[in-house]
Amino acid sequence: MQRYFADSVRGNNVFLSPKDAHHLVDVVRIALHEQIEVVTGQTTYLCSISHLDPLEISIGHPIEEKRELDGELLLAFAVLKGDHNDLVVEKGTELGCSHFIPFLSERTIIKVAAGSEDSRILRLKKIAESSAQQCRRLNVPKVDRYADFDQVLSLTADQKFFAYEEMAGQSATLFAALAPVKAGSSILVVVGPEGGFTIEEAKKALEAGFTPVSLGRRILRAETASLASLSLISAFMEAK
Amino acid sequence: MQRYFADSVRGNNVFLSPKDAHHLVDVVRIALHEQIEVVTGQTTYLCSISHLDPLEISIGHPIEEKRELDGELLLAFAVLKGDHNDLVVEKGTELGCSHFIPFLSERTIIKVAAGSEDSRILRLKKIAESSAQQCRRLNVPKVDRYADFDQVLSLTADQKFFAYEEMAGQSATLFAALAPVKAGSSILVVVGPEGGFTIEEAKKALEAGFTPVSLGRRILRAETASLASLSLISAFMEAK
Repeated sequence: MQRYFADSVRGNNVFLSPKDAHHLVDVVRIALHEQIEVVTGQTTYLCSISHLDPLEISIGHPIEEKRELDGELLLAFAVLKGDHNDLVVEKGTELGCSHFIPFLSERTIIKVAAGSEDSRILRLKKIAESSAQQCRRLNVPKVDRYADFDQVLSLTADQKFFAYEEMAGQSATLFAALAPVKAGSSILVVVGPEGGFTIEEAKKALEAGFTPVSLGRRILRAETASLASLSLISAFMEAK
Repeated sequence: MQRYFADSVRGNNVFLSPKDAHHLVDVVRIALHEQIEVVTGQTTYLCSISHLDPLEISIGHPIEEKRELDGELLLAFAVLKGDHNDLVVEKGTELGCSHFIPFLSERTIIKVAAGSEDSRILRLKKIAESSAQQCRRLNVPKVDRYADFDQVLSLTADQKFFAYEEMAGQSATLFAALAPVKAGSSILVVVGPEGGFTIEEAKKALEAGFTPVSLGRRILRAETASLASLSLISAFMEAK
């Protein structure tokens, strides 16, 4: 639904700025009686178009907005080449991630120092902020400095998964692993680099209490694995 | 897991080309006893590194590959601006989509003629092909010419969903709507343009037997809505 900020409110009617009114009528080509959301101060109302020329918008009932998941959703992802990190953070924010932990693993191709925060991290923070705005989240997800793999393994969450296709056929699918998860749980998912985790890393993750999960029959690119995991986990978390 | 094509096979050992052997040892930095997949002719074997210097690879058991979903998964998506269509087809192919139907709706911004096949469609077909190769699918998804909305509504599938956030709170989540779907069903999901469907389009979709579904609490960009839908549906289809 289209959403606008109120310019002013008089009685049961709300008024938009001339720019927004033009957008609504001439660009969106809104129809009579169609509904829009209008934000006035801290409250958003469901409003309807009661007249088109001149434009009149009647205020309906306030909309209760619940955009956040009921638990924390953490994504630790191996730093990728090019703009794939941007994609993970932009889409991951839309999908409800509350905390991004970019990390360096043995097969990470990008060379940066753990603990550092270069222009790429600042860029990811900005992307998280603008994406949160766009999808109307009230909380902007955190973006950490570069972690090393041991730091990722020391993160705490009620459920800790790592995407590990090398055990496919042996490890459960993420879908099956999510079924017993309780409402309001915090969930951490760790997604490796394009080359995957080394055997040593996988062993360490198992020892640290992480559950290996498969993301299905096809080989997903690293950034797709992150987005598919978040899509699935957030749908599960909202269904509980 | 790393996968290579065999250069030759002798006894229980498989040999790679010098280039691949160099990649495996010096780039991937494979460890002793680590496993790789090696394709010989039509069969793929799970192999393990039995010696590192010189490299020796022992053949293990053949891998049965099932990459495709058990039913058809069709995505009709409103044509988007910029390279978002590329993203939908590349990632959608990884996520198991079998058939892409780009379509034009009232609020589609891009101007093309229904039924036409311009360079953008040819480009999408190439992306589907290379993505299928990358994720090792045996079937390349179909990419249709531009459809109009009525053509989308006349598509047949066992389950027909359309993502319609304007009914959020009223319509079921896609997650809930998928629960009763039977194994092997064909599933069609329709995702609108950035501006959403018009009320008239939504009415027509309802009349045509489509089920409106919500994709959760946050407002997803159009391309994210496509990818989140496919992630969820393919996970469901593989879980049945």
